[in-house]
Amino acid sequence: MNERLRKQRDFMLEVDKMKQIYRQTHIRGGSRQENDAEHSWHLALMAFLLTEHANEEVDVLQVMKMVLIHDLVEIDAGDTYAYDEAGNATKREREEKAADRIFGILPKDQEEELRNLWEEFEAYETAESKFAHMLDNFQPFSLNNDNGGVDWRRHQVHKNQILGRNKKTCEGSKEIWEYMETVIEDNIKKGNIIED
Amino acid sequence: MNERLRKQRDFMLEVDKMKQIYRQTHIRGGSRQENDAEHSWHLALMAFLLTEHANEEVDVLQVMKMVLIHDLVEIDAGDTYAYDEAGNATKREREEKAADRIFGILPKDQEEELRNLWEEFEAYETAESKFAHMLDNFQPFSLNNDNGGVDWRRHQVHKNQILGRNKKTCEGSKEIWEYMETVIEDNIKKGNIIED
Repeated sequence: MNERLRKQRDFMLEVDKMKQIYRQTHIRGGSRQENDAEHSWHLALMAFLLTEHANEEVDVLQVMKMVLIHDLVEIDAGDTYAYDEAGNATKREREEKAADRIFGILPKDQEEELRNLWEEFEAYETAESKFAHMLDNFQPFSLNNDNGGVDWRRHQVHKNQILGRNKKTCEGSKEIWEYMETVIEDNIKKGNIIED
Repeated sequence: MNERLRKQRDFMLEVDKMKQIYRQTHIRGGSRQENDAEHSWHLALMAFLLTEHANEEVDVLQVMKMVLIHDLVEIDAGDTYAYDEAGNATKREREEKAADRIFGILPKDQEEELRNLWEEFEAYETAESKFAHMLDNFQPFSLNNDNGGVDWRRHQVHKNQILGRNKKTCEGSKEIWEYMETVIEDNIKKGNIIED
């Protein structure tokens, strides 16, 4: 077997573990939590359907690659809930070690490509990264809203926490952020989000 | 709310149902069946990591879009197992109706884009479609092999059936098909696939 293909196959089998990493967000209908593979698929599909709402012109292929791989580090580092302060303090260190091991299964050039994609996502500076982060926030936000705000209620989330997490969402898409703001106000009225 | 964004959001919520459509293939380790969202994510990731093995040059973005949406019709039509003859006889008709309804949730131009992507995949003629079909066969094949051939044994699959289903896999990637042939022979020796 071709050495490159062997490494790629090993990687492909390793990342199957994404299907068993459960997030805080529930799938539509609320019957169970969503996993990282499902979440990443959803973002990639949204990446090409929502491109017109990006503030700046984006390279759609780059965004799609980024969202497909952005959570692979969670295979070792686990999912850190957006509003878990203690977990977020050690997140970067845990995720760097994970990136070394997981991307390291691939041939060297592809290891570098994935590492660069992940670092670009984390740095939150390019137009593609800002758009990808907007999607990463908008997707669970929409599911949660459609599920009657159950995840916000369960974690007793405050408006300030949502605004904090989304302080750069408007840099990805002003238009989508404006819609999200109306959803936040609506959920405050319903008692799902705590007004500060 | 912007009318296009409303339709796109409705579509995004509708396709969440992919997370509840279970396929015959089991995830790695065999603890449960894989769903369509997970499968589509896996294919999209493979699409860009395995491009070098395509027989012809392919537009990676086109392949990724195609694999992300190729199973959306199963939201209404359900998953039809590769070796279910009765199910496969009515598959096209069921899936066309599903495509009308599901893609029809989107704005007209995007409905057409997704319909064209799906028709291109189904027609199995372009280099992108052949590569996408190769991925669609190689992914469950690899998981099944890694799981000790459990799905082949459970369905008492014959070598002829696998060759029939994969008769054009070599048109997507000669190199990957050659590797798959060695895996088939290995699983015949292990008694997981029935030699004809």
